[in-house]
Amino acid sequence: MSSSFGTLFRVATFGESHGVGVGAVVDGCPPNLELCEADIQLQLDRRRPGQSDLTTPRQEADRVTILSGVEHGRTLGTPIGLLVRNQDQRPGDYGEMDAVPRPSHADYTYQVKYGVAARSGGGRASARETIGRVAAGAIAEKVLRERWGVEVVAWVSSVGEIVSTGVDADHLSRDMVDANPVRCPDAAAADRMISLVREVRDARDSIGGVVSCVCRNVPPGWGEPVFDKLDAKLAQAMLSLPATKGFEIGSGFAGTRLRGSMHNDPFVKKGDRLGTVTNHAGGVLGGISSGEPLLFRVAFKPVATIGQPQRTADLNGQSVELAAKGRHDPCVVPRAVPIVESMTALVLLDLALRQEARK
Amino acid sequence: MSSSFGTLFRVATFGESHGVGVGAVVDGCPPNLELCEADIQLQLDRRRPGQSDLTTPRQEADRVTILSGVEHGRTLGTPIGLLVRNQDQRPGDYGEMDAVPRPSHADYTYQVKYGVAARSGGGRASARETIGRVAAGAIAEKVLRERWGVEVVAWVSSVGEIVSTGVDADHLSRDMVDANPVRCPDAAAADRMISLVREVRDARDSIGGVVSCVCRNVPPGWGEPVFDKLDAKLAQAMLSLPATKGFEIGSGFAGTRLRGSMHNDPFVKKGDRLGTVTNHAGGVLGGISSGEPLLFRVAFKPVATIGQPQRTADLNGQSVELAAKGRHDPCVVPRAVPIVESMTALVLLDLALRQEARK
Amino acid sequence: MSSSFGTLFRVATFGESHGVGVGAVVDGCPPNLELCEADIQLQLDRRRPGQSDLTTPRQEADRVTILSGVEHGRTLGTPIGLLVRNQDQRPGDYGEMDAVPRPSHADYTYQVKYGVAARSGGGRASARETIGRVAAGAIAEKVLRERWGVEVVAWVSSVGEIVSTGVDADHLSRDMVDANPVRCPDAAAADRMISLVREVRDARDSIGGVVSCVCRNVPPGWGEPVFDKLDAKLAQAMLSLPATKGFEIGSGFAGTRLRGSMHNDPFVKKGDRLGTVTNHAGGVLGGISSGEPLLFRVAFKPVATIGQPQRTADLNGQSVELAAKGRHDPCVVPRAVPIVESMTALVLLDLALRQEARK
Amino acid sequence: MSSSFGTLFRVATFGESHGVGVGAVVDGCPPNLELCEADIQLQLDRRRPGQSDLTTPRQEADRVTILSGVEHGRTLGTPIGLLVRNQDQRPGDYGEMDAVPRPSHADYTYQVKYGVAARSGGGRASARETIGRVAAGAIAEKVLRERWGVEVVAWVSSVGEIVSTGVDADHLSRDMVDANPVRCPDAAAADRMISLVREVRDARDSIGGVVSCVCRNVPPGWGEPVFDKLDAKLAQAMLSLPATKGFEIGSGFAGTRLRGSMHNDPFVKKGDRLGTVTNHAGGVLGGISSGEPLLFRVAFKPVATIGQPQRTADLNGQSVELAAKGRHDPCVVPRAVPIVESMTALVLLDLALRQEARK
Repeated sequence: MSSSFGTLFRVATFGESHGVGVGAVVDGCPPNLELCEADIQLQLDRRRPGQSDLTTPRQEADRVTILSGVEHGRTLGTPIGLLVRNQDQRPGDYGEMDAVPRPSHADYTYQVKYGVAARSGGGRASARETIGRVAAGAIAEKVLRERWGVEVVAWVSSVGEIVSTGVDADHLSRDMVDANPVRCPDAAAADRMISLVREVRDARDSIGGVVSCVCRNVPPGWGEPVFDKLDAKLAQAMLSLPATKGFEIGSGFAGTRLRGSMHNDPFVKKGDRLGTVTNHAGGVLGGISSGEPLLFRVAFKPVATIGQPQRTADLNGQSVELAAKGRHDPCVVPRAVPIVESMTALVLLDLALRQEARK
Repeated sequence: MSSSFGTLFRVATFGESHGVGVGAVVDGCPPNLELCEADIQLQLDRRRPGQSDLTTPRQEADRVTILSGVEHGRTLGTPIGLLVRNQDQRPGDYGEMDAVPRPSHADYTYQVKYGVAARSGGGRASARETIGRVAAGAIAEKVLRERWGVEVVAWVSSVGEIVSTGVDADHLSRDMVDANPVRCPDAAAADRMISLVREVRDARDSIGGVVSCVCRNVPPGWGEPVFDKLDAKLAQAMLSLPATKGFEIGSGFAGTRLRGSMHNDPFVKKGDRLGTVTNHAGGVLGGISSGEPLLFRVAFKPVATIGQPQRTADLNGQSVELAAKGRHDPCVVPRAVPIVESMTALVLLDLALRQEARK
Repeated sequence: MSSSFGTLFRVATFGESHGVGVGAVVDGCPPNLELCEADIQLQLDRRRPGQSDLTTPRQEADRVTILSGVEHGRTLGTPIGLLVRNQDQRPGDYGEMDAVPRPSHADYTYQVKYGVAARSGGGRASARETIGRVAAGAIAEKVLRERWGVEVVAWVSSVGEIVSTGVDADHLSRDMVDANPVRCPDAAAADRMISLVREVRDARDSIGGVVSCVCRNVPPGWGEPVFDKLDAKLAQAMLSLPATKGFEIGSGFAGTRLRGSMHNDPFVKKGDRLGTVTNHAGGVLGGISSGEPLLFRVAFKPVATIGQPQRTADLNGQSVELAAKGRHDPCVVPRAVPIVESMTALVLLDLALRQEARK
Repeated sequence: MSSSFGTLFRVATFGESHGVGVGAVVDGCPPNLELCEADIQLQLDRRRPGQSDLTTPRQEADRVTILSGVEHGRTLGTPIGLLVRNQDQRPGDYGEMDAVPRPSHADYTYQVKYGVAARSGGGRASARETIGRVAAGAIAEKVLRERWGVEVVAWVSSVGEIVSTGVDADHLSRDMVDANPVRCPDAAAADRMISLVREVRDARDSIGGVVSCVCRNVPPGWGEPVFDKLDAKLAQAMLSLPATKGFEIGSGFAGTRLRGSMHNDPFVKKGDRLGTVTNHAGGVLGGISSGEPLLFRVAFKPVATIGQPQRTADLNGQSVELAAKGRHDPCVVPRAVPIVESMTALVLLDLALRQEARK
């Protein structure tokens, strides 16, 4: 179990789906930052369940309390304890699953790894675990925004086969993303996505999707070769999220089909610095931010827990039929948007501070 | 600069393309392992340049010396120093590039980040940096193989538009991979790939590709949620390699288009443990190995340094034409095969030892 | 601010003296350990203020809540969140000290380091910060005791000039230590210590002392040369405690006056293992536990905050007279006993798990 | 085995006494620092054996080679590989000790911990292991000196019962320390120390001693509470050195006998900052440098390997007589002086960079 992340801006998360609460300790936050619970609540509200009929009906207010590290509305530079209490717990929902590990869920591997597993709700493998990340990420984002003007905006770029088009990452805002419940700024695609999620939900099934993310105003120079390259840490951060199966930056897998003469991004003067004409690199060269926007995409598989009956095996290997009774999202990507943004902020601020140490 | 990787099996690499040498210090290797230089040389030979007409003509024997940590042919449990001296250095080749940062290479970002950059050959951004990883990975692989029977086999699954088919990951061996110089075990695809690489080389251009990797006999239970999940560390490891732009595991991006009822991998009894009927998960559930084979893919962009003239800007922003004179691979994926295997081994062994500590 | 400690058994602490609360997140605790709040409360009760007239009259129940990581009375292997709410806060006590940094306290250096400081009660430099350590240490101790039979017992070996004699570290128990409020198992010395502390208290002054500690049944083999040697990590752990000024193990500073022929501990057969006739080493050879009892001593300076008026300077350098009004211990060592034990347990368990990974 | 140290300025050391060589990889060195091998050689020469008749007659030139990280005489910001080849190896000297673990040496615990041990010369427990630290520390010192004017000077303050007096730490220089072979700047005490060491040597015995260290011009603000406090990291660093048994800073153990009213260091204006009238704190308040000189002392036990016959037990527990045949120092403290300085520099620079990240 390794629940801490970061070198200078370090986050340790804790909490199961159905215990007292979930939260995080943020160590290394710069002092003298104005910070109150509302700053953090904003992203938690975008993450919490029950926002629309596309998400799980589980109701959680997810109100954060700052336990330490802030006095008179300013950070002290000391660890910031963050706590969100669980409210709408229904461990009874999970009775049957005790003996039957849900297919494509972590029940089985947690059992093997720890010799014990949270009996209910997926424990640390629950999506609730991400609350600590989002709370911590909201703080990181505030520092990034105030000190460097960094803007991090994620959006749903595909659900199932439906792919958004015409999204202008250079001018995309969170308001534009939040204009519809599926968080896709291409309105036409969004409508079709919404219909698809409802259809899937009604079929007691689930569907995957892709979250894209842009980071603007990232100064050149962030990223620590060779193992803590910016893109490497983003990849780790994204693949550490529940239900993710892939990460690509810039041209990604599509870029493997191109020739260098087409793929290379020529340099050109942009104001008082060098920029590039194209951005196949996705804002990273040699693992270090180039000053161009970061652009990356994260693949989310369809949610594993579905209401449809499935033929599988119990822990003894006996064939059984399982139909999950818990409350689950038919499609995780709309709520994943602030989570992706938060993990991005955690990566960026840590690397920013590591670069600051060099000055 | 963060050149160390791993928690219990920790590797620190060093070395520029054109300095005295490159290498690594491996800390935390289990004691009493039989180890000699030949064990390490094998993978270095698969990585080194000059293996065929598909790779850079730079000639490097890349002979490794064990500096410490081994006595009478066995590891002591102490740090293993590894050194490979550089031989065929031609820093003169890089004169022009001093003032003109190569497009899509790290020259510019290293300059901005460090305020200085290795004048020649890309410094730490050179592919030679991976020698330390491969040497260390060869040791990790030996431990994995001897103690758990783990087999790690990577191969080239696509070059440009050419995609291999019919590769049986369950029975693939390194000999089958090495049967042709492009390291694609689909002979028909391999022939076309070889032609394509030659064509690209002759056009003084480059081409991207995908390396796939399978790990067999990985016991269930490896991976440390939530931030050091097995897939998260693999993603970091792969994106830390030069020229990589994407990582996907199991169904990856394609899986985002499926429904849960199709994507879920039902459990089934396999001998004395649980296995799954399908393996869309790619061998990882909740960030922990499931006992099924690990299957993942890594996207490599076309090599940035090409002989064709390119219109770009110098560090002052003046438009210039650049034609690289150094010796470079037209396609990096054949030589990337042992590098991907090595990084995989570094990830697996570290997580294996962390799980051992739990027993 | 680096508030995390340990590699495999990792603790992150948080909390100021006068905020909402203090606590810790314990990551890497072995799963399936029976654990309830009472297990932790025991050591918190030995640490809390108000135990006798020798300690600060500040009243704090210091009740711990387990927030996560435990279900049905057993650890899950996931992070254990621990919270102790602050109750008896009187920030008003500290008004004057805002402008006048207390001599030999951390007010000044926190101000310089962070550009801000907790306005009241010393913030993270308060002794309340140690609550998180004690709570986490209580868990570590339970694992050590149940799995290896390790016994950690600390005691007050001197207060001011008064030095205890005749303490038999081989058979010392916590009950014997707790038999008097000064926690010195030499009853005669204890009486004199108690008188001295009362005298000092009445003079609104303070006095230093030494805490000694023995660890029995530590198996040989714990400690990770060369930087994470057992004695090195103990030294870090002890010097990280408030008010400590020194650490010595085995013969310590006195041993520097001896010759090797006197100081060396000859080996001798003890049951089925090797032991030593003497134990000048204090249980550590080459940074690794030898199987003999660990024996070390920690120097605590007199508490800096005293009621007597002191001539000093304010932050502007103006000479002022300061007389502290807060509630403070005249002598810290009795309450330091469980804190030393807790930090010892954190060090030992982390190194134990790291050695387990080698098996 | 944990052979890396530091967070931002990170050192990984390697090498046994009798293998190919010893060295280090320094990661995180600021770029653009002028650096050549002579900068490093200076401290290695002060550390190497054979400097006088007080040290082991083993002859080692200990010439360092920079393997990477430096180009055209300047650091690149990339890892600096450092190698010192072993020359005067006589593994034959150690034949008898294979079966008989030397009393108070690490032979036994290495054997138990790793199940194997370097057959000769103590392996990693040899004093040669410190070469990597000294080489790395010399680089750290250069950064500290050039950027902040930090001066680190250690000296021998006692050998056996002989204690130096009248050393003015405010004005002590390395030249003054090196004025005699025992490295004690109190000439009268030095003469007696030299006689004592010779006497001990001729008796084939050994003797302990204390090394003191002062660090001047350390800016206030270095040190990362609560676990990586400046004094905590110094304590770890010093106790990680071979043969050390104690660490104290400022008033240390003697300070435990004082009252707060005597021990407190009143603040006073010093130029444009606050200083203290006295310095019982030893330059650290709350784990953070105060701007006053750092002052600490390190206890070294008598060298364990002595030529006198000792009654002890072999690995089977059989009583045997052992008389060591290797070449060893009768007193380690003169050569420990540059080692203490080097570890101090490693601690200081790492904490300095961590504080820089906060600006």
